[in-house]
Amino acid sequence: MGLVVQKYGGSSVADAEGIKRVAKRIVEAKKNGNQVVVVVSAMGDTTDELIDLAEQVSPMPAGREFDMLLTAGERISMALLAMAIKNLGHEAQSFTGSQAGVITDSVHNKARIIDVTPGRIRDSIDNGNIAIVAGFQGVSADKKDITTLGRGGSDTTAVALAAALDAEVCEIYTDVDGVFTADPRVVKKARKIDWIAFEDMLELAASGSKVLLHRCVEYARRYNIPIHVRSSFSGLKGTWVSSEPIEQGDKKVEQAIISGVAHDTSEAKITVVGVPDKPGEAASIFRTIADAQINIDMVVQNVSAAATGLTDISFTLPKTEGRKAIDALEANRSGIGFDSLRYDDQIGKISLVGAGMKTNPGVTAAFFEALSDAGVNIELISTSEIRISVVTRADDVNEAVRAVHTAFGLDSDSDEAVVYGGTGR
Amino acid sequence: MGLVVQKYGGSSVADAEGIKRVAKRIVEAKKNGNQVVVVVSAMGDTTDELIDLAEQVSPMPAGREFDMLLTAGERISMALLAMAIKNLGHEAQSFTGSQAGVITDSVHNKARIIDVTPGRIRDSIDNGNIAIVAGFQGVSADKKDITTLGRGGSDTTAVALAAALDAEVCEIYTDVDGVFTADPRVVKKARKIDWIAFEDMLELAASGSKVLLHRCVEYARRYNIPIHVRSSFSGLKGTWVSSEPIEQGDKKVEQAIISGVAHDTSEAKITVVGVPDKPGEAASIFRTIADAQINIDMVVQNVSAAATGLTDISFTLPKTEGRKAIDALEANRSGIGFDSLRYDDQIGKISLVGAGMKTNPGVTAAFFEALSDAGVNIELISTSEIRISVVTRADDVNEAVRAVHTAFGLDSDSDEAVVYGGTGR
Repeated sequence: MGLVVQKYGGSSVADAEGIKRVAKRIVEAKKNGNQVVVVVSAMGDTTDELIDLAEQVSPMPAGREFDMLLTAGERISMALLAMAIKNLGHEAQSFTGSQAGVITDSVHNKARIIDVTPGRIRDSIDNGNIAIVAGFQGVSADKKDITTLGRGGSDTTAVALAAALDAEVCEIYTDVDGVFTADPRVVKKARKIDWIAFEDMLELAASGSKVLLHRCVEYARRYNIPIHVRSSFSGLKGTWVSSEPIEQGDKKVEQAIISGVAHDTSEAKITVVGVPDKPGEAASIFRTIADAQINIDMVVQNVSAAATGLTDISFTLPKTEGRKAIDALEANRSGIGFDSLRYDDQIGKISLVGAGMKTNPGVTAAFFEALSDAGVNIELISTSEIRISVVTRADDVNEAVRAVHTAFGLDSDSDEAVVYGGTGR
Repeated sequence: MGLVVQKYGGSSVADAEGIKRVAKRIVEAKKNGNQVVVVVSAMGDTTDELIDLAEQVSPMPAGREFDMLLTAGERISMALLAMAIKNLGHEAQSFTGSQAGVITDSVHNKARIIDVTPGRIRDSIDNGNIAIVAGFQGVSADKKDITTLGRGGSDTTAVALAAALDAEVCEIYTDVDGVFTADPRVVKKARKIDWIAFEDMLELAASGSKVLLHRCVEYARRYNIPIHVRSSFSGLKGTWVSSEPIEQGDKKVEQAIISGVAHDTSEAKITVVGVPDKPGEAASIFRTIADAQINIDMVVQNVSAAATGLTDISFTLPKTEGRKAIDALEANRSGIGFDSLRYDDQIGKISLVGAGMKTNPGVTAAFFEALSDAGVNIELISTSEIRISVVTRADDVNEAVRAVHTAFGLDSDSDEAVVYGGTGR
């Protein structure tokens, strides 16, 4: 008998009908002879409604109380889901994050899981119950206060529980059929991926793919827990994310050369203009940004103009952090020494991800050729071993994604092979 | 510095505006130099909405899960209230029933508090915080499952915490100005009571007065915690419920001869017809009812008709238990031995309550005269040392309450003295 952890997102349990549909699916897994642990998010828009209420009573809600408030959302969905399962004649018990042993640090609103002690969950399933666990929440190790893991935290709860319970698989149910070679809303011919390696999935998640959060994939890779991302609506097989290719029929799924194309329009670009071109300048800029608790993404330093001895440094960061970064830099203008700041939030990022880049020369060249053929101008470039990302105008992003998707033979009804140039990368 | 426990009901925190208004009142109490612990109910209709959701997913929601669901309501209101207080510049922390140390038995949906261990609350207020505690909920001693105390349970939470923290007073804030000599919706001239003894309040609560629950008053009496029932809207002084009369100006409030008139139209009457008039018959009827976990209120046995040797036994019980009682009696018809059952839910109960009855002869006679003058027919009578109750037709209740209220000089602009007859009671 295997142990399966299933996670259902808010859109899957948006209303009573959704909860009953999900209950049937859970009972199915139990009937198939599995022990079943379910992690559930808050129903539909509940979290947004609670945030709205908080803003009505306080412009700056305190972290501890904000977490106490938000965790009411999963409490509702998990209790209803347990009731719906019992109504189908199976035993179910719901557990808060705290009851399930999800121990976190004390950083309210974006706590990190530091330990999982699932004794009550183990007892519950060993007694024949289906255990329903509140996603997204835990309890702080030191103060025993309720914490939340931040947006998308339910996926992390599911993977962490799967690891602690040594589950065979962590099934992430969502409102799409799996991970696609590109966002299907942008690329009509995007294909569902049957299997993708942890590493490629991590790069896709870091590059704007919304299906799985980076933190969740990281956790799954660390504990080697296979993830199966699939739809709670269609019941089709979805995408497996794991270290080793899955078997399909009598053969293993092959590692794709290119896994997919991700894009992201949530970032902005700040350019620090007129920085003296001497050692330590970049360090003082990024120390200022880091001290403001802001994560940056791509960085580029222009070639120095010899005449002036000045250069420009550009970097990208989430738009939501733009104001804070500008304020932090202005406050330290004399310390850093620069002429002016330019802020640009009309940018987009396109990333090509694939482990095959390591061994297939010419991927980079083909990528740039595709963008060039589509008339897309490139502003910044950044690469990892298995990813190339470029920043373009926001208006060019959709066209660029489609062009790259086609150029690398990812379109679903296309069987053209991509011809790699021999220039290496 | 005193310690005050305040309790706010759902109507006081029905929306963001209500929460902000309540927050100001709490801060006022803190500014007056008190340590403040606040018990809060779920916002407005939240609990009903959650019950509605539960019914959509399951016709018979399980107790454990139902409690898990309902407790989300206070979690929302307490977190919002803490935020609103912090927004006024004061420190506040919210605590679930479990965190506040409210330990109960395991009877889901109507658990009883068996212990309160308020260590975290004590620490919180000693550190200068206002502590906000979820009403209505606790955690079971044996299984560590979340429990609820049943409707009105937040009042009991407040009194229990006040007792455990040795508070000076438990203030129950509600949407009326206090306890009245009769229901002001029925008797326009009803007066607000300044002070009432625990015993009289217990009888009023048992007789249909909705302001305070019987269980809450019982708890307050046992631990001698003065209750101050008052409006969260008007800010006026309300009604003190305590063992000793309060001081008002330079003199003590006098013990009233009659505290008030209560009425109740939530009961039904069952008559067991044709019962053999021999020892043990009543016992077998009420054993049957008790085994079905039904609480009965008044009982009357008619005089036996000598010719047949048969008698009728009537009793009242909550309408909501009527079906269950009839079924239980029918199932045991041969064991008990009776001809038929009559069910009547068109009855009402009027009760006159006052410690003065003990020493003022003629109260009973004056009560019956008032009813007689108003043309109200009496079907059942029951008395305690400080209460007389009668059952009448439901249609007669309002008129009967007004007549009795006037006859005993309780009307607010009346200064007629009640002339007691000399017949004693």
